[in-house]
Amino acid sequence: MPPVAPRSGDAIFASVDRVNAELFTLTYGAIVRQLITDLEEVEEVNKQLDQMGYNIGIRLIDEFLAKSNVSRCVDFRETADVIAKVAFKMFLGVTATVTNWDAEGTTCSLVLEDNPLVDFVELPDTCQGLYYCNILSGVIRGALEMVSMKTEVTWIRDMLRGDDAFEMQVKLLKQVPEEYPYKDDE
Amino acid sequence: MPPVAPRSGDAIFASVDRVNAELFTLTYGAIVRQLITDLEEVEEVNKQLDQMGYNIGIRLIDEFLAKSNVSRCVDFRETADVIAKVAFKMFLGVTATVTNWDAEGTTCSLVLEDNPLVDFVELPDTCQGLYYCNILSGVIRGALEMVSMKTEVTWIRDMLRGDDAFEMQVKLLKQVPEEYPYKDDE
Repeated sequence: MPPVAPRSGDAIFASVDRVNAELFTLTYGAIVRQLITDLEEVEEVNKQLDQMGYNIGIRLIDEFLAKSNVSRCVDFRETADVIAKVAFKMFLGVTATVTNWDAEGTTCSLVLEDNPLVDFVELPDTCQGLYYCNILSGVIRGALEMVSMKTEVTWIRDMLRGDDAFEMQVKLLKQVPEEYPYKDDE
Repeated sequence: MPPVAPRSGDAIFASVDRVNAELFTLTYGAIVRQLITDLEEVEEVNKQLDQMGYNIGIRLIDEFLAKSNVSRCVDFRETADVIAKVAFKMFLGVTATVTNWDAEGTTCSLVLEDNPLVDFVELPDTCQGLYYCNILSGVIRGALEMVSMKTEVTWIRDMLRGDDAFEMQVKLLKQVPEEYPYKDDE
């Protein structure tokens, strides 16, 4: 039986349940403000957003695999493309560009020019160290870990800090061979 | 010039930017979990969710008025209908039913049978006093305050507590006459 073709991000995005993007943006803004109030240290807020993203990512990957028909990617390059073109589209309605590959094909950048998380957001001077979108990098790290890729995801450019785009560097640290829950001969 | 006809919730929902509902649900779940960890007391979490919702509501009303072409409602009855049929649809993709009016027409219930906030949510025993969707009641309170209606919004039924639907009671406390920022003869 031929494999089911992966669906495009557009087609999936059109078919899944959605909510208003501004509600999402404002809700996310309310979280960040809340964390800043509760935790005080910007560095702690960054950590917490990353952890929240990680917890979301390890669950969102199931929805992604179920709805996208994407099966195993042959390598990290293909994985990065799928995140940029299918996953971003499916969840946020925007696509990212994959660029800045290193020679080994284990580090690349995902560049976002349009980012629904930051509509209407301006950071006050007291929040200059904040990575406002750290939840996103956490989601990617969490989701990839569920498909056996340990990664480190770092923000390189951030429009809220005056850069011209959002750029996340994704570095593959380790690819864990998939383990079956039981042995073949059991 | 005839007034512009209000747009249906469906038409607006189809035309606005949206994000994946599961991402929203998981993000909201991450907030609630975070608040429970940080604040410890369930009662404090309820208060905080309500306050976050209020802060969202006072901004979301602008998007609502701008996109919906809804103009001044003649009375609180019409307001409740617009929230149930247009606003809920526009932001969450679901509609509510308006019911249980009191004789004065100042208290009613909004009933939701489908609520994207709670997909996959189960409350552990330690969270029995939690109003998980308290952000929603806060949004309504905040948005209505911006159009000069002071309200009290209380949860009457909650599916996470074993009820058969979500029911919010909305009670109009005071209708503040709108004030112009300047006098006519100035």
